[in-house]
Amino acid sequence: MIRANPHYQKLNTDYLFSEIAQRIQAFQARRPDTALIHLGLGDVTGPLPAACIRALHAAVDELSCRDGFRGYGPEQGYGFLREAIAQHDFRVRGAPICADEIFISEGTKVDIGNIQALFATDLRVAIPDPVYPVYVDTNVMAGRTGPATGGRYSGLSYLPCTAANGFVPEIPDTPVDLIYLCSPNNPTGVALRREQLQAWVDHARAHQALILFDAAYEAFIRDSSLPHSIYEIPGAREVAIEFRSYSKTAGFTGVRCAYTVVPKDCIVRHLDGTPASAHALWRRRHQTRSNGVSYFAQRAAQALYTPEGRRQARALCDQYLANARTLRTGFQQLGLPCTGGEHSPYVWIDTGQDAWAFFDLLLDQAGIVCTPGSGFGRCGQRHIRLSAFNSAENTAEALERIAQVLA
Amino acid sequence: MIRANPHYQKLNTDYLFSEIAQRIQAFQARRPDTALIHLGLGDVTGPLPAACIRALHAAVDELSCRDGFRGYGPEQGYGFLREAIAQHDFRVRGAPICADEIFISEGTKVDIGNIQALFATDLRVAIPDPVYPVYVDTNVMAGRTGPATGGRYSGLSYLPCTAANGFVPEIPDTPVDLIYLCSPNNPTGVALRREQLQAWVDHARAHQALILFDAAYEAFIRDSSLPHSIYEIPGAREVAIEFRSYSKTAGFTGVRCAYTVVPKDCIVRHLDGTPASAHALWRRRHQTRSNGVSYFAQRAAQALYTPEGRRQARALCDQYLANARTLRTGFQQLGLPCTGGEHSPYVWIDTGQDAWAFFDLLLDQAGIVCTPGSGFGRCGQRHIRLSAFNSAENTAEALERIAQVLA
Repeated sequence: MIRANPHYQKLNTDYLFSEIAQRIQAFQARRPDTALIHLGLGDVTGPLPAACIRALHAAVDELSCRDGFRGYGPEQGYGFLREAIAQHDFRVRGAPICADEIFISEGTKVDIGNIQALFATDLRVAIPDPVYPVYVDTNVMAGRTGPATGGRYSGLSYLPCTAANGFVPEIPDTPVDLIYLCSPNNPTGVALRREQLQAWVDHARAHQALILFDAAYEAFIRDSSLPHSIYEIPGAREVAIEFRSYSKTAGFTGVRCAYTVVPKDCIVRHLDGTPASAHALWRRRHQTRSNGVSYFAQRAAQALYTPEGRRQARALCDQYLANARTLRTGFQQLGLPCTGGEHSPYVWIDTGQDAWAFFDLLLDQAGIVCTPGSGFGRCGQRHIRLSAFNSAENTAEALERIAQVLA
Repeated sequence: MIRANPHYQKLNTDYLFSEIAQRIQAFQARRPDTALIHLGLGDVTGPLPAACIRALHAAVDELSCRDGFRGYGPEQGYGFLREAIAQHDFRVRGAPICADEIFISEGTKVDIGNIQALFATDLRVAIPDPVYPVYVDTNVMAGRTGPATGGRYSGLSYLPCTAANGFVPEIPDTPVDLIYLCSPNNPTGVALRREQLQAWVDHARAHQALILFDAAYEAFIRDSSLPHSIYEIPGAREVAIEFRSYSKTAGFTGVRCAYTVVPKDCIVRHLDGTPASAHALWRRRHQTRSNGVSYFAQRAAQALYTPEGRRQARALCDQYLANARTLRTGFQQLGLPCTGGEHSPYVWIDTGQDAWAFFDLLLDQAGIVCTPGSGFGRCGQRHIRLSAFNSAENTAEALERIAQVLA
């Protein structure tokens, strides 16, 4: 008899963004004439940088003739892209990362979901609350938790991020084995400072733990004292894996290209305590279960490391950051406490009421889609996340509509 | 302490194709002036069909302006592609499949690896021998096997495919829960006939088992009596999941686009025997762990369903099939028994000696790269797989060089 993975039954609701999509669909059926403004899903609104468009056309032309044709690429991704990444994303910032420690992939969501399968199932896992729900859900699917009660799964160590601690996850009293960190955080927008990250690296080294560092939003950092990569922190190479994405930073959500860094001296342990190479494990998984990323996407990503591409991608991020500032300032004037929006495209707002109720209020009364904070963890049950991925005009109009509803 | 997934230690050698790549590299270092001919890896040699090239350029242009820009696509893939698939790959063949039962993905390798995670870990799994090694390796990683001895993992039910049974997997005496079938088979090239597939479907229904049907090579079938899809077989919708790929059939190995069909009435069971929907489980996984496939790739795949695209893709397959016939005929004349090469780009050759020894002989003496059959299972330890993915000229020259060595 073909039996299902029993852990899927613990996932008692649909994926957050699917639930939102369903409520939107129901609203549009009721009110087909309302022009919605979407500040919910973290999806970019484009267009792609011109440097990428040129690279994409050139790559398509290459594949149109036998001489230029490329089939399967190298396992970890093309050298032209991995070299550019190692140089521009790491070495210029003093982070000692080599091209052969980089694995090109189709998305951080995919890699974050896959990486946990390299580890034993009976680990103690620490996850910030609130945070991107994929960290929790993929550990539930893998059987690392018991059932959920009151929005939390038994067996996970949640790291509450609230106004009381400045939304910075604190090092737990009882040791953990696997630690998820996201900086700048999705959804709070808070970026970890160097000394905060150093404390986590030191803790991981002291307890033979491993940090999974999600830096998908690093391109939005505008304070030069803040680290972009965990490998800017001494000692991180042995205890951290880092995830990067072009989705939000260059408008690649429809292009699909990201990467994961697994340093060659990053250590995990066999049952008997002998060291194993996390790099070798990930490479083995990659070989067996992936055929890499489209040639087009890798050429488009490479173009982001030219002077023109860097300027265009930064301009894209700056537009979104300007929207984020608009939202943050607007909500502060409405008297609602906010974080984020400075080094992040997200603004995290304390609504003072139930998150889904506030979601329904904004949708029904203002035609605005936000993301209920409860989807990111129990600490978000009074919060919403607003996304700056929109035009300046739509952002301003959204704020106006919201102000009328809340007045 | 961060502990590794203990099952990875059971994978005692590198992934087959990586091992081959290493031997090639060593040979080229010794003999840099030999022009190798690659009949090993199943990678196409292009170029892409002109209809796809046009669709790709158009899609890139759309993403270059705000009005045409597309970010994240629909979860299961764009409707334009799923509708075309349902119509042209299934309904015209009498296979009752709907667009919303299709999940677009970046590759069959990825989906085949991921699908097993929907199921319990203590299932009895049946896998043909020889076959694509990803079926075995992903079940090893998931902990469904014990250690390997003599090239076989304990806990798996191997289905030997040899000259004695016409290379057709036979229904096992003891019941199994999860059954992998590949038709036309990689590496033997043998395609299952309708009554053979019907017997498997009947068996799965009788024992509440599930069939994972890998049809990545269906476009090479030229005998109109052979089924292309398992859903041409009555009763299959409840007990089968099918995998399709554009990699080999349209030269998409560098484009990355494939799909998986999970019918809405395909049933798995909870621990207590109550039915669960395989479709719902896969959708939940897809939502949580994937962001889909690039917009470009989906437009390119759509172009394959136009009259022009279909003609061009078929012509590509016909070229490879002509090479396959050349190889098959050539080896038969050399006195070595062969299968495949009729409805498949692969020819499976009984060398009468150790597969890796024959691999080294062809590499060292003829500068020809093949794939040792032992990489596909113990039944392949005397075989090699030759791939027709090459030009007619290279194929003819390869055969000439081999004939000289074997003379």
